[in-house]
Amino acid sequence: MSFYEYKPGKEYIARLDHFADLLEAITELAQNTKIKAGRFTAIGALKNAKIGYYNQDMKKYEDIVFNQHCELAACIGNVSLKDGGVFVHAHVVLSDDAGNSKSGHLISGRVFAAEVHLTELTGPDLERKYDGLTGLSLWDIK
Amino acid sequence: MSFYEYKPGKEYIARLDHFADLLEAITELAQNTKIKAGRFTAIGALKNAKIGYYNQDMKKYEDIVFNQHCELAACIGNVSLKDGGVFVHAHVVLSDDAGNSKSGHLISGRVFAAEVHLTELTGPDLERKYDGLTGLSLWDIK
Amino acid sequence: MSFYEYKPGKEYIARLDHFADLLEAITELAQNTKIKAGRFTAIGALKNAKIGYYNQDMKKYEDIVFNQHCELAACIGNVSLKDGGVFVHAHVVLSDDAGNSKSGHLISGRVFAAEVHLTELTGPDLERKYDGLTGLSLWDIK
Repeated sequence: MSFYEYKPGKEYIARLDHFADLLEAITELAQNTKIKAGRFTAIGALKNAKIGYYNQDMKKYEDIVFNQHCELAACIGNVSLKDGGVFVHAHVVLSDDAGNSKSGHLISGRVFAAEVHLTELTGPDLERKYDGLTGLSLWDIK
Repeated sequence: MSFYEYKPGKEYIARLDHFADLLEAITELAQNTKIKAGRFTAIGALKNAKIGYYNQDMKKYEDIVFNQHCELAACIGNVSLKDGGVFVHAHVVLSDDAGNSKSGHLISGRVFAAEVHLTELTGPDLERKYDGLTGLSLWDIK
Repeated sequence: MSFYEYKPGKEYIARLDHFADLLEAITELAQNTKIKAGRFTAIGALKNAKIGYYNQDMKKYEDIVFNQHCELAACIGNVSLKDGGVFVHAHVVLSDDAGNSKSGHLISGRVFAAEVHLTELTGPDLERKYDGLTGLSLWDIK
């Protein structure tokens, strides 16, 4: 494994706007707070969402559309740098009116209400670079 | 979006009592540690649980009863203030003996065993107020 | 409930190796960073996994084999001490190509790609001891 050591920075508590896109809003939060490296969790409810399943053989994401009101039962993610800008990577667990759960890589989601807990990490730049083995943009930790 | 900035406060590691109610026990933990704003995660196992799905059209929670022993596969939540007291908002992912998952807003749950990681956030008061658009008590961030 | 108070220590961001075992790799991360008490979250994708459902009546884990490529939609866990060594306890939510979710106690999982956010907690030793009531090794918090 490879890892970087950080110090805990500032903490942010955010209420996302009704109708915002979940991924865009968290990205905007990272930009507004000038966070370059961070981690977060979130909970709430969405009006709909699109999540991704990574096809490890084909090396591409397959879309899973969740076209209904749902609970954002869990959201875990991080903030790092990619192509010179802030990049948010998030996974979500969504649930329908019976509690049944769909989960995966967050592509987009319309916010009904969402609460985000974001921690800034202060230390080395955390950059993503293309990794040929997986086809993903992974952290390039020296 | 609207957000508040905090400094990381104390960290708490808690073992909840066998047979306690999960939501009440986390609320009691926040009260005992005098936390007014915080975030937490938890894992464990429950004897049973009741979770909520928020009906966005009707603006009310619908109960989903999970009347069986289950893993508390994930729990993410936060501590803030509501009506002058400490208020815990938590979402959970539960799973049965086949690993199948039900998730949503935590209403109640009987603890078999549970481990909580709670972080105090020091900074502005984080108060919930009724939001007419969603029908929920959301953070009133100035 | 019983709880310990900690101060936030160092923060670690780790990229796990392709083909590593998820539980072993997080344990190795805790060992390499000399963390004795901590909490973490992680996201990524696995090639396969084995998770546990705890049979509360029989007091033993039952294995659930997830023998397919999957998203690591959520992973929440902690680091403490057991039998003199570092012990990682983690729960996971996994999802298949339709987003359907299996979750439970992490026993093992082959990493495709995984990102871990680990927080060191500085304070009292956090030791696990056998608990007859549950049959589990729980935190022995004084």
